[in-house]
Amino acid sequence: MTIGAGAKLSDLPLREDLVGRSPYGAPQLAVPVQINTNENPFPPSEALVADLAASVAAAAVGLNRYPDRDAVQLRRELAGYLARVSGVPLLAENVWAANGSNEILQQLLQAFGGPGRTAVGFEPSYSMHPIISTGTRTTWLPAPRLADFSVDVPAALQVIREHDPDVLFVTSPNNPTGGSLELSDIRELVGAARGIVVVDEAYAEFSERPSAIALIDEFPAQVVVVRTMSKAFAFAGGRLGYLAASPAMIDALLLVRLPYHLSVLTQAAAIAALRHGDDTLGSVARLVGERKRVAAELTRMGLTVVPSDANFVLFGVFDDAPATWQRYLDEGVLLRDVGIPGYLRATIGTESDNDRFLQVSRSVLGAARGSVEKV
Amino acid sequence: MTIGAGAKLSDLPLREDLVGRSPYGAPQLAVPVQINTNENPFPPSEALVADLAASVAAAAVGLNRYPDRDAVQLRRELAGYLARVSGVPLLAENVWAANGSNEILQQLLQAFGGPGRTAVGFEPSYSMHPIISTGTRTTWLPAPRLADFSVDVPAALQVIREHDPDVLFVTSPNNPTGGSLELSDIRELVGAARGIVVVDEAYAEFSERPSAIALIDEFPAQVVVVRTMSKAFAFAGGRLGYLAASPAMIDALLLVRLPYHLSVLTQAAAIAALRHGDDTLGSVARLVGERKRVAAELTRMGLTVVPSDANFVLFGVFDDAPATWQRYLDEGVLLRDVGIPGYLRATIGTESDNDRFLQVSRSVLGAARGSVEKV
Repeated sequence: MTIGAGAKLSDLPLREDLVGRSPYGAPQLAVPVQINTNENPFPPSEALVADLAASVAAAAVGLNRYPDRDAVQLRRELAGYLARVSGVPLLAENVWAANGSNEILQQLLQAFGGPGRTAVGFEPSYSMHPIISTGTRTTWLPAPRLADFSVDVPAALQVIREHDPDVLFVTSPNNPTGGSLELSDIRELVGAARGIVVVDEAYAEFSERPSAIALIDEFPAQVVVVRTMSKAFAFAGGRLGYLAASPAMIDALLLVRLPYHLSVLTQAAAIAALRHGDDTLGSVARLVGERKRVAAELTRMGLTVVPSDANFVLFGVFDDAPATWQRYLDEGVLLRDVGIPGYLRATIGTESDNDRFLQVSRSVLGAARGSVEKV
Repeated sequence: MTIGAGAKLSDLPLREDLVGRSPYGAPQLAVPVQINTNENPFPPSEALVADLAASVAAAAVGLNRYPDRDAVQLRRELAGYLARVSGVPLLAENVWAANGSNEILQQLLQAFGGPGRTAVGFEPSYSMHPIISTGTRTTWLPAPRLADFSVDVPAALQVIREHDPDVLFVTSPNNPTGGSLELSDIRELVGAARGIVVVDEAYAEFSERPSAIALIDEFPAQVVVVRTMSKAFAFAGGRLGYLAASPAMIDALLLVRLPYHLSVLTQAAAIAALRHGDDTLGSVARLVGERKRVAAELTRMGLTVVPSDANFVLFGVFDDAPATWQRYLDEGVLLRDVGIPGYLRATIGTESDNDRFLQVSRSVLGAARGSVEKV
């Protein structure tokens, strides 16, 4: 008998608002083509793995000591990267880092959200925005997107004026739909807001649109740009999320961050990964090229593909998306059913992943030809 | 001009309860004798560093993929370790892990605390208990310890009955004072409580008292035992906190944990460190021996040393502890002023760290002989 098996979850004095909830989770299944979590399909280079191992070994000699609580060297390297790609001369004091962008978002909501405060986002969007808002007891107010999944800017301005959110989420490119916002539109949204505006740019490297980093100096008390090394840097397993903002914004996060939240291993590994950034980011152009190929092929099959600026495509329209998801899985292709009726999301994989995905798409469509309709 | 320097912290729409606060932080100073954060002074062995680097390199090959969200192998290894030392046959489903015990505590408070709920702890104790309680909007109710810093069990039972806390913190051995509780006392406290009881055993390996793990099967809906690899495992830089509890308790934490919170690097490194556990834990006896020597020497100098079961000692009594802290620092010895009037805390270091600490103690006492009084 397992120790403690005498208690069921319902016996525990759990918070009322958690009762009956299920844990977050995309299935983690070992199938040939895993294109469900927007990972970068290209593993790190041998040179990066060797450098990372050497960096970690050097750092491990001091593992008995706590890490640099403020991760200054890592933040300096991240600032240098963002400055190069955005043209905005960011410094270490403009950057903060944590264990994945989820922890960054949680810290932002701990500092600026919480009980009695509200967060607005345009749905469908990244599912962790409402989950982390609710987890920090911030009231989540979803606002709808247009039928083509773009943000209706005039309606968004109206929502901002009406609800005066403490935290506004703008996801660009948007996950799971793929589209991004013009900088001028983001500026207009920020201009209408009183609270902070979290521009979630997890997929920015796959887009040609300029980053909202350009707005930080204009709106230093409001604009936060969240990034991740999970996607373009192929570092999902390393868990490194970060943000760019004014130094004051980072001072605010120091009040809520758990001390020593970033291990010496994470700091050393991320710095090593950044040293190989040019190499790793070479995969971005390749993935963008593949995205265009995949989108064109799916369109040719008669499917609707939402225009994407990211490393995935949302496509449909299926009468029964969950059943279609299962048909792909039966053929060894793991997609994501993000809960948008009629649609599925496919991450852009390697050339051979994509070939297989397209091949299975043809057979799934052949089998279900009658049930596919174009919107 | 730094980007975004136009905003000050006071310009930001920060939560009201954070306004005017200062970030948590022991000074991170590079001085010869760093005995301020209860780190293990012995660096990892060469064999461990080599194994860890090889494990991390092997894991890094898949860094483009997300980690095992539930860290099953690591939890199995941790359960095996706890089962060996406690004699309680724990399994992976009895264990949960996170980035440091701080994240473990935060997850517990997110699941069982929060707005409208209360947490009780016996102060002085680990300063992160009230900080994380407040950070999750849980009302913190401190209860006093006796003058010798032990828990007044009858008074504690009275506090529990009166305030009916949702979360009760019991720290054994207690940081920063060093004493531990008898299992029978902890059982009595749990028996009086309705809410969960978090037994923080960060320093358990340095104590001969039995672990509260023995109480999990008796109180599966209440008892959570929190541990860390930071101290006895000399893994402070690796950030690995964990807990033992009933499987239902871990189901509750799955509802609040950020997905993929533990990196593949952390999981691989911690597993490697556990493989070398017997070796690393060899330092525990050595540190306990040194603790006895340091305590005896300080006592011989006329100082009061609070009996300690941990890898540090709280000692005094000084008229002006902050000034005394500075005198030690001037001599290259970094202690911790934990804010208990008249007392300072010294981590047990290497033999030479301790020699130097004792030598400086003699000179500090010589200079301040008139200002030292024995309670």
